[in-house]
Amino acid sequence: MAGNSFGKNLVLTTFGESHGPLTGGVLDGFPSNFSIDHHFIQSELNRRVPGTGDLSSPRKEEDRIEILSGVFEGKTTGAPIAFIIPNNDHRPEDYSGVKDLYRLSHADYSWDRKYGHRDYRGGGRISARETAARVAGGAFAKLFLHSKGIVIHAIVCEIGGFLLPTQEAAANEFLRTLKEAGDTTGGIISCTINGLPAGLGEPVFDKLQANLAKAMLSINAVKGFEYGSGFAGSRMKGSEHNDSFIASEEGSGLQTVTNFSGGIQGGISNGMPVVFRVAFKPVSSIRIPQETIDKHGQTVQFTGSGRHDVCVVPRAVPIVEAMAALVVADQMLNSDVVK
Amino acid sequence: MAGNSFGKNLVLTTFGESHGPLTGGVLDGFPSNFSIDHHFIQSELNRRVPGTGDLSSPRKEEDRIEILSGVFEGKTTGAPIAFIIPNNDHRPEDYSGVKDLYRLSHADYSWDRKYGHRDYRGGGRISARETAARVAGGAFAKLFLHSKGIVIHAIVCEIGGFLLPTQEAAANEFLRTLKEAGDTTGGIISCTINGLPAGLGEPVFDKLQANLAKAMLSINAVKGFEYGSGFAGSRMKGSEHNDSFIASEEGSGLQTVTNFSGGIQGGISNGMPVVFRVAFKPVSSIRIPQETIDKHGQTVQFTGSGRHDVCVVPRAVPIVEAMAALVVADQMLNSDVVK
Amino acid sequence: MAGNSFGKNLVLTTFGESHGPLTGGVLDGFPSNFSIDHHFIQSELNRRVPGTGDLSSPRKEEDRIEILSGVFEGKTTGAPIAFIIPNNDHRPEDYSGVKDLYRLSHADYSWDRKYGHRDYRGGGRISARETAARVAGGAFAKLFLHSKGIVIHAIVCEIGGFLLPTQEAAANEFLRTLKEAGDTTGGIISCTINGLPAGLGEPVFDKLQANLAKAMLSINAVKGFEYGSGFAGSRMKGSEHNDSFIASEEGSGLQTVTNFSGGIQGGISNGMPVVFRVAFKPVSSIRIPQETIDKHGQTVQFTGSGRHDVCVVPRAVPIVEAMAALVVADQMLNSDVVK
Amino acid sequence: MAGNSFGKNLVLTTFGESHGPLTGGVLDGFPSNFSIDHHFIQSELNRRVPGTGDLSSPRKEEDRIEILSGVFEGKTTGAPIAFIIPNNDHRPEDYSGVKDLYRLSHADYSWDRKYGHRDYRGGGRISARETAARVAGGAFAKLFLHSKGIVIHAIVCEIGGFLLPTQEAAANEFLRTLKEAGDTTGGIISCTINGLPAGLGEPVFDKLQANLAKAMLSINAVKGFEYGSGFAGSRMKGSEHNDSFIASEEGSGLQTVTNFSGGIQGGISNGMPVVFRVAFKPVSSIRIPQETIDKHGQTVQFTGSGRHDVCVVPRAVPIVEAMAALVVADQMLNSDVVK
Repeated sequence: MAGNSFGKNLVLTTFGESHGPLTGGVLDGFPSNFSIDHHFIQSELNRRVPGTGDLSSPRKEEDRIEILSGVFEGKTTGAPIAFIIPNNDHRPEDYSGVKDLYRLSHADYSWDRKYGHRDYRGGGRISARETAARVAGGAFAKLFLHSKGIVIHAIVCEIGGFLLPTQEAAANEFLRTLKEAGDTTGGIISCTINGLPAGLGEPVFDKLQANLAKAMLSINAVKGFEYGSGFAGSRMKGSEHNDSFIASEEGSGLQTVTNFSGGIQGGISNGMPVVFRVAFKPVSSIRIPQETIDKHGQTVQFTGSGRHDVCVVPRAVPIVEAMAALVVADQMLNSDVVK
Repeated sequence: MAGNSFGKNLVLTTFGESHGPLTGGVLDGFPSNFSIDHHFIQSELNRRVPGTGDLSSPRKEEDRIEILSGVFEGKTTGAPIAFIIPNNDHRPEDYSGVKDLYRLSHADYSWDRKYGHRDYRGGGRISARETAARVAGGAFAKLFLHSKGIVIHAIVCEIGGFLLPTQEAAANEFLRTLKEAGDTTGGIISCTINGLPAGLGEPVFDKLQANLAKAMLSINAVKGFEYGSGFAGSRMKGSEHNDSFIASEEGSGLQTVTNFSGGIQGGISNGMPVVFRVAFKPVSSIRIPQETIDKHGQTVQFTGSGRHDVCVVPRAVPIVEAMAALVVADQMLNSDVVK
Repeated sequence: MAGNSFGKNLVLTTFGESHGPLTGGVLDGFPSNFSIDHHFIQSELNRRVPGTGDLSSPRKEEDRIEILSGVFEGKTTGAPIAFIIPNNDHRPEDYSGVKDLYRLSHADYSWDRKYGHRDYRGGGRISARETAARVAGGAFAKLFLHSKGIVIHAIVCEIGGFLLPTQEAAANEFLRTLKEAGDTTGGIISCTINGLPAGLGEPVFDKLQANLAKAMLSINAVKGFEYGSGFAGSRMKGSEHNDSFIASEEGSGLQTVTNFSGGIQGGISNGMPVVFRVAFKPVSSIRIPQETIDKHGQTVQFTGSGRHDVCVVPRAVPIVEAMAALVVADQMLNSDVVK
Repeated sequence: MAGNSFGKNLVLTTFGESHGPLTGGVLDGFPSNFSIDHHFIQSELNRRVPGTGDLSSPRKEEDRIEILSGVFEGKTTGAPIAFIIPNNDHRPEDYSGVKDLYRLSHADYSWDRKYGHRDYRGGGRISARETAARVAGGAFAKLFLHSKGIVIHAIVCEIGGFLLPTQEAAANEFLRTLKEAGDTTGGIISCTINGLPAGLGEPVFDKLQANLAKAMLSINAVKGFEYGSGFAGSRMKGSEHNDSFIASEEGSGLQTVTNFSGGIQGGISNGMPVVFRVAFKPVSSIRIPQETIDKHGQTVQFTGSGRHDVCVVPRAVPIVEAMAALVVADQMLNSDVVK
């Protein structure tokens, strides 16, 4: 498979299948001698777990992280931090019905074509379950970033086309209708990185926005990424889009009046908040019967029966933050930044 | 600096400054024993050069590629293919006026903060000049892909908010107005990859769309990326968004009725066309005076005087194609695909 | 720390400390749909465990591997194979006496200088314990290589200067004397890779011998690597050293009369057996009192008390084989070989 | 081909064929704002060029380096440093006679098996010509290291089995005899790195000695590498081999009485000089007729006629230093060292 590692200076490798015994990861390159707040890491994982609201998946996940290595007497040693998150509630039998068919807009078919041997239990590596390890890895990265005064904060800004928080009531009503119908919808997450020093990122292929884009598009169900003015910026004039600097005392960091640049110029952070938006498609598992194809090319009827969310976007907030944290921490550990 | 290389199996490294003597690249990992159509490579470079139309930059660039290594008796040897593209028309003196100030929405400030020593001539590595080497590298990748029946085709689908080709006259009128005013605008490029076999990409961090997103966001002036249904998909219902398979004979590749998945499911190509869109901001160099800041934090007036395009998007079409070609060729050279 | 991953196409990441709860690894890039012989993998680990002979360390290690992911219904899925090997017999208290001093020719001092926070328990990551994960990873690689007809076999060819097997009695007598004295010695391992196809390796920086050398020098206590004629080859004449080809039918692989090239020419395998030798220094933990320095620069007396081998070389045989297997499997999974 | 890049933080990519128009390289990751002493870089290249003595190759190589990018107003900009070294004296016709046969102990056969399309002119990438680019890249690395007080110095310590300088007269007599006979011999280079701070290297796979070993074994004709006590250390007792620390004031770096550890403990430098030795085989091109095989498997007589050295080892001294400099500079640019 390969491609289960992310980062260059701070490398997260994840492993584990959705409905196997556990999900886990190894974080290599984390600085030594750093106090680890275990409670914070667990709290990040808790943010990803389905809530108790009636619009969330009823699946109960106790995402208890166990740190296996790399921390000694409460501090990092510089050795790789390995951790596991047991899948307490996995029920492989749930998925036996889908063994021989290709669900619509799932990875069943493309996976079969690539590997010839599919772990049909809950999507294997493609399941959102894998993202628990990302949230854990990202929580470590956040601890490091907090010590540098860098804070990452994401929110759901749109669900099913309704703007949050301004149209929250309508959005909830829409979600209730979808739930009754067994349908799903998507949404958009907006993320802000505050406290980033100027000078982060590389000007050519490893532009800061390029690494963020890769990080976000590697999250399940993500269909788009934009930063700063984004797609709307393509419709602006240069005279409108240019961010004016604010005069300041020599030596201090500069600020701009507007931030259409999204905190990044020429691939390198300029000290303004980095802002970006991530679009999520609706989850493809719905309780509405749809026609699909089995392995023999025959048409079959399929109705999703698993435990799925009407809208996965709220649960994706900590995942977006985690991936952003991994990107930024990786850049902060570049030698040209550290110096 | 680092980050001047792109790819894992097929690696393009670029070098050269905008207003230095040349731009160049090294392409490592290209298969041996492959006939090189030099004419095709040159024709790709010609597509990036400004046209003769009155809306383009008057700068005359003769992008003549010279292949320095890796090709022997008309065929690749498997050795790295190095090439250079002389900058025939570079005039360093053009930029001396900007040496001590930070142009709006340029990389001047962030670069200064990172490197402490700026090559102020035309933006150095951040200039669009660097993309000539990408187009050359991408042309080699395209030759390889053509031999596999894979064709990449991009078009400008939106300029300044006007849809092409349906609103072409209005768009041209808008561009003329901008040119007179010394202003600029952005646009959107749509790209389609046809002939891609199913099974390309990795399901976790190296999803095909993640690598494409990174490739696109590494292009200057790009503000957003979306594939398949994109941002609009976030407003759809799952029941609408799911792509139905079309029944077919056993063994043959499957097709879908719609292609909201954009040819990729679970990070892996499914055999349908891969479709994505890339948003470009307006070029920040305008001939309208704007206030900015010099190195001492003092407000100064700045008016762009260089040779710049009203809308750079048409010239970016071959760059988008080139980066896509590099991503796809890199994946095609993965051992799990080659087997 | 970083540097806990090895390989490019087949990547082994290891984690865990010598006297923590476990050692483990993640193997990414292993082909899918491959039957895993769990018994073989366990048997490889058993080869590394101390024997029952009176010259071995009395430490009882039950190296029971648990596979956590990547294998479903007895076959690999293409997903990363994570595994752990619990440290059943770890006793952290053994090492508290060395907490504040720098043992001779250990990594205590250099580690302290690098990380500032030392896991003094048994050397942390620098302990030979880490190599259990390498042997496990190498066992998977061997399974893959066996399916290609490639077999790796290493032997101890020298201990304390005595040649094996010709001077075995004298060597054993020497080891007994050392054991009584509380002393140690080193030795040399010779390794042969049979069945390797011609064409493996890259001609410049990633020569096959360069990757083997890195692999071997990454093993604890290794002081030297040579292949083919090795250091002795530096004293030969070209006319003696040149390997003559044996005439053969067109199309079949060529053989050479001698194999001073060690199966590699120009960095690329030529189809002859790959042969190399690896030198190990004596283990530095001895039961003879020696003077050393504590953290305050004061001279202190130190006598090793842990459970250590008189000669670690026999236990290193499966480690040498494992690292060689990882190098060769990684190369076999290069797309230019797979094609 | 791939594998034409070396390093992680400071990456050298080389290109060009032995008998093509030039050899070149791209050095990415070099710190910005660093004054470049062009004279020093040229003088390093001059060290690799054949001398005027009667034992050297009569081939006249004017290795004039041209820096193409990355240096502006005498200082590095942080952009990739590209350079070329024209092959002024290349004569492709010299090698047409070897087009269809496999020279003994050359890469002709293995290359043919790998690529199917051989650049028979002087060995293509496998020629020692490629090392000119390494020496140039290493010269930049040395400039950086000198600014940190790190000096790398290599010498020939053995030729054809004769120890230098103690047996220099006998060695020269031996070389004269070989030259008359048209034969060649090998030798050993010893290298010392002084001024290295403690704390360089990674404790597991990226041990400092592992990276040095890979670097050295990637040089043409190298058959072996050992550091510190090396192969001889495998015959010592632990009580002899252990390096005693010398008492010192708290806070200052420690030294050891002996240096069997070769300046590295647990993969990490300990502040003592790093010492290693590299063995070179005799050059395989000799003027003595030997039987070999052509592409059809037929026996043919072959006599080397090219311009080759009796002993290439003296010319390899700057190559060994250059590769060592690249390894050490790469480690010095690790963020955990830079901090």
